[in-house]
Amino acid sequence: MALIVQKYGGSSVADPEKIKHVAERVIKTKREGNDVVVVVSAMGKTTDRLIELAKQVTPVPSEREMDRLLSTGEHQTIALLSMAIHHQNEKAISLSGAQIGLITDDSHTKAKIKEIQGKELLLNLCREGNVVVVAGFQGVTEQKAVATLGRGGSDSTAVALAAVLNAKECEIYSDVDGIYSADPRVAPKARKWNYIGYDEMLSMAKLGSKVLYLRSVALAKRYNVTIHSRSTFSENEGTRVMAENRIKEEGKMEEALVRGVTHDLNVAKMTIVGIPDKPGIAARIFETVAKKNVNLNLVIQSISGNKEVTDISFTFPRTDLPKIVEPMKELTSEIGAQDLIYDADYAAVSIVGLGIVDTPGVTAKMFRCLANENVNIAMIGTSDLTITCVVKEDNVKKAVAALHKEFDLDQ
Amino acid sequence: MALIVQKYGGSSVADPEKIKHVAERVIKTKREGNDVVVVVSAMGKTTDRLIELAKQVTPVPSEREMDRLLSTGEHQTIALLSMAIHHQNEKAISLSGAQIGLITDDSHTKAKIKEIQGKELLLNLCREGNVVVVAGFQGVTEQKAVATLGRGGSDSTAVALAAVLNAKECEIYSDVDGIYSADPRVAPKARKWNYIGYDEMLSMAKLGSKVLYLRSVALAKRYNVTIHSRSTFSENEGTRVMAENRIKEEGKMEEALVRGVTHDLNVAKMTIVGIPDKPGIAARIFETVAKKNVNLNLVIQSISGNKEVTDISFTFPRTDLPKIVEPMKELTSEIGAQDLIYDADYAAVSIVGLGIVDTPGVTAKMFRCLANENVNIAMIGTSDLTITCVVKEDNVKKAVAALHKEFDLDQ
Repeated sequence: MALIVQKYGGSSVADPEKIKHVAERVIKTKREGNDVVVVVSAMGKTTDRLIELAKQVTPVPSEREMDRLLSTGEHQTIALLSMAIHHQNEKAISLSGAQIGLITDDSHTKAKIKEIQGKELLLNLCREGNVVVVAGFQGVTEQKAVATLGRGGSDSTAVALAAVLNAKECEIYSDVDGIYSADPRVAPKARKWNYIGYDEMLSMAKLGSKVLYLRSVALAKRYNVTIHSRSTFSENEGTRVMAENRIKEEGKMEEALVRGVTHDLNVAKMTIVGIPDKPGIAARIFETVAKKNVNLNLVIQSISGNKEVTDISFTFPRTDLPKIVEPMKELTSEIGAQDLIYDADYAAVSIVGLGIVDTPGVTAKMFRCLANENVNIAMIGTSDLTITCVVKEDNVKKAVAALHKEFDLDQ
Repeated sequence: MALIVQKYGGSSVADPEKIKHVAERVIKTKREGNDVVVVVSAMGKTTDRLIELAKQVTPVPSEREMDRLLSTGEHQTIALLSMAIHHQNEKAISLSGAQIGLITDDSHTKAKIKEIQGKELLLNLCREGNVVVVAGFQGVTEQKAVATLGRGGSDSTAVALAAVLNAKECEIYSDVDGIYSADPRVAPKARKWNYIGYDEMLSMAKLGSKVLYLRSVALAKRYNVTIHSRSTFSENEGTRVMAENRIKEEGKMEEALVRGVTHDLNVAKMTIVGIPDKPGIAARIFETVAKKNVNLNLVIQSISGNKEVTDISFTFPRTDLPKIVEPMKELTSEIGAQDLIYDADYAAVSIVGLGIVDTPGVTAKMFRCLANENVNIAMIGTSDLTITCVVKEDNVKKAVAALHKEFDLDQ
């Protein structure tokens, strides 16, 4: 008998009808002969409503109390889902984060999972024939205070449970039926993968695919948990995310060097022109940005003809632009640079695949393809599994479509 | 330094503005030099809304899961009230029923408190300068399942905490500023008492005064906790409920033999006429009523001129009439009685006071007073502290007013 962990997000349990539908899916898996542990989020917009309530009480709520308040959302869902399963004549029991012994560190509102102590309890409840319904997104600190795990926290709960319970796989349900080679809204011919490696998935997620959270994929990689990304609204098999070498061993490698074309529309670009070439000045620039809590994506330092001065360009989330314009203007004049140029209408287009950076000709092929489409490349960056080009936002759609075709991804 | 337990019900914390008002009251008590432990209920109609959600999932929800669902209401209030106290620059910390170690029996949805294990934790948090904000109405079973305490559960939590913590008193806030000698809506000249004994209060509550729950007064009597019934919306001192002998010792006895005139409009009366006088027949009647879970109030057996037959009359909550009409009709014919008469438009009017039953002339004075008002008495009953007359419902108002004047209670 296999044990399956299933995770359903807020939109899958948004109202009583949807909760009943989830109960049916859970029971189907159970009646196919599996033990089932279900992890759920708060219903629909519950979390937003609770945050709004707190704001009406105080503009800066204590994080400990905020965590207590938010944790009630999942408590409601686990009770209601358990009732819905009972109503369909199966045994079910709800457990909170505290009750499964999910211990976190002390960083309220964005706590990290330290361990799950309730393994034996969970297995016993399964053995007694129960579907175990667990509150996602939450645990308790060593001091027994409720702590929430932050964005994507329910996914992390599910993956951690799958690891502790040696589950066959961790099914993560959303309104998308798996991982595609590109966003189907931008590239209509995008194909769904049956299998994808952890590192490929991490590169895809980081660059803009919204199906799985980075943190839960990283956790799955660390504990070798197979994630099965599926749709709540279809019976189709989705995409299994697992170790690249296991995919190879099981002969399930799909023949494709490039596995995805991703894009990120939230990109701004800033260039400081004519910086006096003295030690320590680059450091001052990046300290100024870091102080405002802005994460940089690509950074390029270019030395112009005049060896006395350099230009530094970088990209970052467009939404952070207002935070750094004024500090960077001040800095530009302080360090005696010539000019500060910034522009919000950029985007990043990337190709993702294990080994593409080391395969001769891939980079050249990407550039030639974009040139053929008259797409100018403003900046270029590479990392282990990705090659990224920064382009003007209005070129994104044709760039993604052309690259998708060029690398034989079209269905 | 004294420790005060305060309890605020659902209407006192119905929205963020009211929660802020409660925070002010709490802080005032704290700044007067007291340690404060606050017990709160769910906000306004939250509990009703959650029950409605559950009904949309299944008509017969599991009681364990229902308790989990309902317990989230108080969790939200304790988080929000703690935030509101922080906002006014005092330290506060929220604790759930589980966290204060409130252990209950296994009767989900109407559990009884077995013990509170968290005394040291609570006292330490107070010593560190915190207002401790506790979720009312809930605890955990020995198996660590969340259990709720049923109607008036938050009052019971507050009184139990006051007992465990040796609190100076347990303030129970509502929209009424204390215990009156009669319902002011019926008797406009009703007076507020400064002190009232446990047994008098129990008799008043049982007979229809809605300010305090019977169960919490009984608990207070058992552990000798002083309850202070006060209004959320006024600064006036309310009524202190404490042991009769302590009121005497402290010289705070108010001179009044009768302490209250109460009434109960939810009364029906049933008479089985001409019952053959054989052993066991009365038992069969009361078994039939008990099987339908109907509690009897007054019972009178009258022997008519003919010694072979008797009549039995009893009163019970009017709302229970439909449950017992058919079974009693069947029984009447089975036992060969002559007739079954029932009538829903009765009411009970009582006078309450320690010692009134043993004081010569009180009963006679009550009857004469009602007779002067042309109020017919259908049945009479007495218990330790009360004399009750069953009268027609449309006589209630003049009966209460006349008795209130007769026993010198008018202000």
